[in-house]
Amino acid sequence: MAEEKPLATLDEMRALMAHLPGPDLEAGTAAAAREAQLTKPAGALGRLEELVQWMATWQGKHPPTIEHPRTAVFAGNHGVAARGVSAFPADVTAQMVQNFIRGGAAVNQLCEAVSADLRVYEMALDEPTADFTTAPAMSDEDCALALAYGMMAVEPGIDLLALGEMGIANTTAAAALCCALFGGSAAEWVGPGTGVAGAVLERKVAVVGEAVGRHRGEATDAFDLLRRLGGRELAAITGAIIAARRARVPVVLDGYATTAAAAVLFALDRRALDHCIVAHRSAEPGHTRLLQALGKAPLFDLGMRLGEASGATLAIGILKSALACHTGMATFAEAGVSGKED
Amino acid sequence: MAEEKPLATLDEMRALMAHLPGPDLEAGTAAAAREAQLTKPAGALGRLEELVQWMATWQGKHPPTIEHPRTAVFAGNHGVAARGVSAFPADVTAQMVQNFIRGGAAVNQLCEAVSADLRVYEMALDEPTADFTTAPAMSDEDCALALAYGMMAVEPGIDLLALGEMGIANTTAAAALCCALFGGSAAEWVGPGTGVAGAVLERKVAVVGEAVGRHRGEATDAFDLLRRLGGRELAAITGAIIAARRARVPVVLDGYATTAAAAVLFALDRRALDHCIVAHRSAEPGHTRLLQALGKAPLFDLGMRLGEASGATLAIGILKSALACHTGMATFAEAGVSGKED
Repeated sequence: MAEEKPLATLDEMRALMAHLPGPDLEAGTAAAAREAQLTKPAGALGRLEELVQWMATWQGKHPPTIEHPRTAVFAGNHGVAARGVSAFPADVTAQMVQNFIRGGAAVNQLCEAVSADLRVYEMALDEPTADFTTAPAMSDEDCALALAYGMMAVEPGIDLLALGEMGIANTTAAAALCCALFGGSAAEWVGPGTGVAGAVLERKVAVVGEAVGRHRGEATDAFDLLRRLGGRELAAITGAIIAARRARVPVVLDGYATTAAAAVLFALDRRALDHCIVAHRSAEPGHTRLLQALGKAPLFDLGMRLGEASGATLAIGILKSALACHTGMATFAEAGVSGKED
Repeated sequence: MAEEKPLATLDEMRALMAHLPGPDLEAGTAAAAREAQLTKPAGALGRLEELVQWMATWQGKHPPTIEHPRTAVFAGNHGVAARGVSAFPADVTAQMVQNFIRGGAAVNQLCEAVSADLRVYEMALDEPTADFTTAPAMSDEDCALALAYGMMAVEPGIDLLALGEMGIANTTAAAALCCALFGGSAAEWVGPGTGVAGAVLERKVAVVGEAVGRHRGEATDAFDLLRRLGGRELAAITGAIIAARRARVPVVLDGYATTAAAAVLFALDRRALDHCIVAHRSAEPGHTRLLQALGKAPLFDLGMRLGEASGATLAIGILKSALACHTGMATFAEAGVSGKED
């Protein structure tokens, strides 16, 4: 009898990384050319102008569009939650998914405010990943399946993707992943998450140190670290970012856990996140360190630390406003406005 | 024959300042109480939560509303423009007003994006104020009329007011006003505005220094400084802020010129701007110094420096999103989500 072939493998994901599409510089240049003609001093809309150029570059068209923005929230449970690293019980992951489905969470209101399509992806919540202090969180196939599942969020027609997560204990996983990817001490990457302090925070630091010590030496690459220290929802985010790059869909990353999932790709290819922006600086302290490692400047810092794509969805509104200026403004010639004096 | 009574006087404005309504702490407390029950870790929406509490406090009701937000843009011309302090000719003020009316400016697109009602107030553009290096920019009555005109922007029914301006040379006026109000050298308050550099920037610094030197010693108070160094659109903004306080309408301030107009009230009463937030940190360097003087932390910093209420209007979208979370989210009890573990 032939051995059963796995449905997906990490090697398949590794192969995809060798063929990531690059920027469409022509579309970006077309955006910059129009920008220069609009009725405002050159550069006066600041980062809004850069965002439009970035969207054109990674959608590969000018003008870019935001007609079908999607917010994708992946939810997963973590074996390490049993170590008591969160302020909330693990049941809250499933309860919050129900809250998303019934429309009662922050992300529901934010999606409505910016007219984004919300999709929630529940990932085997009854079967948490293994406690990564004692074993890899996932098998190779489990991790590859989670990546593939995340890729499915990039359906034809969507033109902007905001990514976020829900998963009790996943800032512990994020901290472990970042510590293993970028070095430094566990304490430098661990923060309060949903609100732990004192002895629980100390335990969280110890758990992350233990996990990184166990797996860092054995891991073969960043995908293997994702498998060992990540979780299904984090792997799904990693997969969604790969799929978005291939489909020319710009990505807006949310906070610490989401950016940590993205960092796996950065560790493999320094240009792999060029189609991604980070919406905001999370109040979770590790996020600032991670943004420095990635060389990403967030759009805003409002002290948010909720996850569930809340910051990324808020950023969709800013992107829409930026694009509305670019496409709707009159040029100096159209408006009969005098240009800058020499 | 009796002497003709002026239509408005600065003394009337001074009298209003003695009776500014205070905060409605009960409404603010009601907002905080609801916030604590919503399905998220306490404080996880960061500044979004504070914004809702601020709106409740200054609208004097819970929940606050953003059903009729207005963006008001005041346009004025400045005699000092003749000194060659701007990159653009003074004609551009009137040309941009026509652009606003025809819907071609950035603020038009931004208002549409956040469903704000845009009103543009054109203030005697054919009669620039006097060049304040040689005389006060306005008479007492002219300044008082401009303040009163600005007050009319606060019509019954509006529940949020975004303020901005258009006026060639008005960052020169803003710098002069700030320098006179808060001290420091002219160079510390002067920046590129629409994009001046080199010799023009040096001239702008010299002009501000000259103006402040002439008027600071003679001015009787901050309103008198506004009259001497401001302009009609700046005085109108000052007036709109007073009227909004009296009508319980929270205010969103735009960039450097708008915040400078607001600073006049701060100089008279340290609590006079408590119903105002500053939307963004302008790229104009004097704005950072001014924000420090006022103790205001802007909502975002996207390197914008356009004026015309562009940043303030963008902020309306953030405020709407914050409010949508507050009013639309389920409570822990409603959603059957477990609370924080002890």
